[in-house]
Amino acid sequence: MKNDSPLDALIRMLGTLPGLGPRSARRLALYLLTRRESVMQPLAQMIGRTAEEIRECSACGMLDLHNPCAICRDSSRDPQTLCVVAQVSDAWAVERTKSFKGRYHVLGGVLSALDGTGPEDLRIASLLARVEAENISEIILALGATVDGQSTAHYLADRLAGTSATVSRLAHGVPFGGELDYLDDGTISTALRARSRVA
Amino acid sequence: MKNDSPLDALIRMLGTLPGLGPRSARRLALYLLTRRESVMQPLAQMIGRTAEEIRECSACGMLDLHNPCAICRDSSRDPQTLCVVAQVSDAWAVERTKSFKGRYHVLGGVLSALDGTGPEDLRIASLLARVEAENISEIILALGATVDGQSTAHYLADRLAGTSATVSRLAHGVPFGGELDYLDDGTISTALRARSRVA
Repeated sequence: MKNDSPLDALIRMLGTLPGLGPRSARRLALYLLTRRESVMQPLAQMIGRTAEEIRECSACGMLDLHNPCAICRDSSRDPQTLCVVAQVSDAWAVERTKSFKGRYHVLGGVLSALDGTGPEDLRIASLLARVEAENISEIILALGATVDGQSTAHYLADRLAGTSATVSRLAHGVPFGGELDYLDDGTISTALRARSRVA
Repeated sequence: MKNDSPLDALIRMLGTLPGLGPRSARRLALYLLTRRESVMQPLAQMIGRTAEEIRECSACGMLDLHNPCAICRDSSRDPQTLCVVAQVSDAWAVERTKSFKGRYHVLGGVLSALDGTGPEDLRIASLLARVEAENISEIILALGATVDGQSTAHYLADRLAGTSATVSRLAHGVPFGGELDYLDDGTISTALRARSRVA
């Protein structure tokens, strides 16, 4: 292994990705090199294409080929119900349950004193603007049952209390300490149906 | 998530890689999309560049920018000692110990009745040819202490017994059932020094 080789650079880069360490990065690089045509080159192209073509929806923060995204453009979805989630992966988790027919609003995280994440770091101003501009009638706070998730839900309930929208949160089917993206679809479905009003 | 989006295709591709499942593939794709300029595009370029520029050494089977590889071209290395390994990653593991100054021969696997890997599937004919053509004086069989690794070592010792080369194998410092790439460098160093002659 010489240090100036693209293979070494690739292994170093792979090793910094979430879930991969130096050893799994080496194994992955060798796996790819034995499948150059069938896996490696298509993967390089798809990563590049995704980086170029996938954009953030300026309305809701979801990721899609188009802006506004497919969900925001879908006229069969209820335009007056918003599901507020921390991350895109949380919205995908709700979508997989097929239990929700409104639109989303991705905050981009949760409030966290520890990480120094304040309201101005999240898509909260645009949420408040949307509630007025789009005449939203119900807001479902679909945030994880963690301390930060729940304090974010409380903060949002307070900020949204002055609007005309009903604010609800997922039912306490969500296990404490759990993260939304790790739940099974049935638990998320149940929690959506049993949502309780907080403001 | 629409099914024709490059993002979905990317997540499907990532999910087939070793060590990644559907959930870790989604997390990885989102991680990349929040770091398009700093990580995602450089990664796509480096995977593509590695696929194009890294080639297999036609002499030893190692991976390098050039053919023959840097190790085969390095005149300071002993040209008469060959270290026979199953995989490129095993040769890297031996290289990291800095205990070996000869050259390598990568078999591309081990003999395995279960997987149907026979001698003709491995770089064995070219090993025998090298021993004659390069006037090799010592062959170190650095194969894992697994059943398949050891039967491959026995098979090679038999095939090499007729040549002028001394054949040794790694000392029994290698723990039974262990794979070479998973050992610490010290164990590999010790086993290299205490190698024992088998033919």
